[in-house]
Amino acid sequence: MNAGIDVLISEVGPRDGLQSISAIMPLEAKKAWIAAEAAAGVREIEVGSFVPASLLPQLADTAEVVAFARTIPGLTVAVLVPNLRGAEAAVKAGAHKLTLPLSVSETHSLKNLRRTHAQVLAEAKAIADLVAAQPADQRPKFEGSLSTAFGCTLEGPIPDETLTRMAEGLMAAGCDEVGLSDTTGYANPAEVGRLVKLIRGVVGDDKLTGIHLHNTRGLGLANVVAALNAGLDTIDSSLGGIGGCPFAPGASGNIVTEDLAFMLEAMGLRTGVDLDKLLAVRKIVTDVLPDEPMYGFVPDAGLPLGFAPARAA
Amino acid sequence: MNAGIDVLISEVGPRDGLQSISAIMPLEAKKAWIAAEAAAGVREIEVGSFVPASLLPQLADTAEVVAFARTIPGLTVAVLVPNLRGAEAAVKAGAHKLTLPLSVSETHSLKNLRRTHAQVLAEAKAIADLVAAQPADQRPKFEGSLSTAFGCTLEGPIPDETLTRMAEGLMAAGCDEVGLSDTTGYANPAEVGRLVKLIRGVVGDDKLTGIHLHNTRGLGLANVVAALNAGLDTIDSSLGGIGGCPFAPGASGNIVTEDLAFMLEAMGLRTGVDLDKLLAVRKIVTDVLPDEPMYGFVPDAGLPLGFAPARAA
Repeated sequence: MNAGIDVLISEVGPRDGLQSISAIMPLEAKKAWIAAEAAAGVREIEVGSFVPASLLPQLADTAEVVAFARTIPGLTVAVLVPNLRGAEAAVKAGAHKLTLPLSVSETHSLKNLRRTHAQVLAEAKAIADLVAAQPADQRPKFEGSLSTAFGCTLEGPIPDETLTRMAEGLMAAGCDEVGLSDTTGYANPAEVGRLVKLIRGVVGDDKLTGIHLHNTRGLGLANVVAALNAGLDTIDSSLGGIGGCPFAPGASGNIVTEDLAFMLEAMGLRTGVDLDKLLAVRKIVTDVLPDEPMYGFVPDAGLPLGFAPARAA
Repeated sequence: MNAGIDVLISEVGPRDGLQSISAIMPLEAKKAWIAAEAAAGVREIEVGSFVPASLLPQLADTAEVVAFARTIPGLTVAVLVPNLRGAEAAVKAGAHKLTLPLSVSETHSLKNLRRTHAQVLAEAKAIADLVAAQPADQRPKFEGSLSTAFGCTLEGPIPDETLTRMAEGLMAAGCDEVGLSDTTGYANPAEVGRLVKLIRGVVGDDKLTGIHLHNTRGLGLANVVAALNAGLDTIDSSLGGIGGCPFAPGASGNIVTEDLAFMLEAMGLRTGVDLDKLLAVRKIVTDVLPDEPMYGFVPDAGLPLGFAPARAA
């Protein structure tokens, strides 16, 4: 965990948000968004994905975005990589953190990444080897993300045994840690607590610290409370709640960074985020994407009268 | 707690929802709504408020609504009463449960009920005496609700000492129990847990079992999780999230019954509610109030593939 904060908000809007909309945000706007959100105190941003431009033209400029984001002091620059080729590009660009998604639903894995579990685990091994071969001071962190962990729109519930086997497989392949991802918005607070315990039981408490939640059924922040209670301290979210997974029908809506930051600060948990500055970042996005809906309650309702953010220690 | 369920969902839409909109729902539609929601398994419904018709013409037919709702087997018919006069009408109509709101913010109390704390506590005493004078088999339950407990749009944060003094005052006046109400949408999960403990410390665990939460800042269901963790088992909500408090500016949006019921059942907590039947009740409301926005995520997203509600014991 970063110094001086209790919970790390990992902004995924520039990747998960932008990949799910058809409009393409200009590079300069991406830079302005990332710079402004970092200036508001967000310490980790997933800035793009190294996928073929033919598949996601919205993220074709990820290498340039990474190069820019690396110039921002104190910011962890995260990217998504679907395979070794993407990881090679990510390492070359200088990303600080690579995330490889592995859909625990093999049906979803075939649709999303066009790979079987065995193939994804082989990619994980190849990426881990690549990462391990980097000089120590340039070595990025490598996370395996357990997608559709709370159920799949194609398969329904995922057996615990599949989940633990995939978590073990990712760690055995050489991942630094695993993450839980509610790709489909199926999670509920009881299941969040149960799965964190289940996965930590096989990988160790310090190898599962983060979760990616969607607000598809309105339970996003309720699931955050459960995640915090279970001991996680890194929460993904998207400015304005934009984004989702284009390959999981009906699975839209990341949790909203603004509401998440408000909730955490109101609870006395330090995020490092200045809420007023964060709320002002929305304008950068809406100015260039005026037709995209932006979500969030706090942006409409404002902060409570007499609201005091979490105090520095 | 009702037999066979773990959490009691107390529907407040016909009171809190309808009082906050200008359109007047016809009596027959109210009856159809209440009957359908009871048939979907909701066991407690706040069906109206005994306030002067000049103040809230939307609820002028509350006595007739109560008379109808009393004919539904197994349904607890709750009403809001602002004073002794309202309580007399409620007792005459045969309501099973009376709730008197006391705004712990005295400024809000003067605006909302036009009474000082001392005056509201005197009303509470008069109502408790009235209730106690009823034959044992017809005696309604009498709850004092601590409104603006999590802060006031006019006063800001409320001192703990005011809150505990008002809770003790309501119990001393003769209330059967007290409830916590986030009238302004200022609550957060940490504060929910803290205030439940604080108030239970002065009134006893069995004298605070319910909470009324708003979703003004998107934290409604997150606060429910905290309430459950703190030991509460009765949660207010409104079908489609309609409603709020017309006297607290910006304080709109009850938590959505459909999303609440989904969350609880998904967590394995039995509510007695049939989700498909509950979702179908929305049409009754939208048919007669086509211009009123209805909220909720589950109505749009649907239930997860392979979803199983909480099992009967």
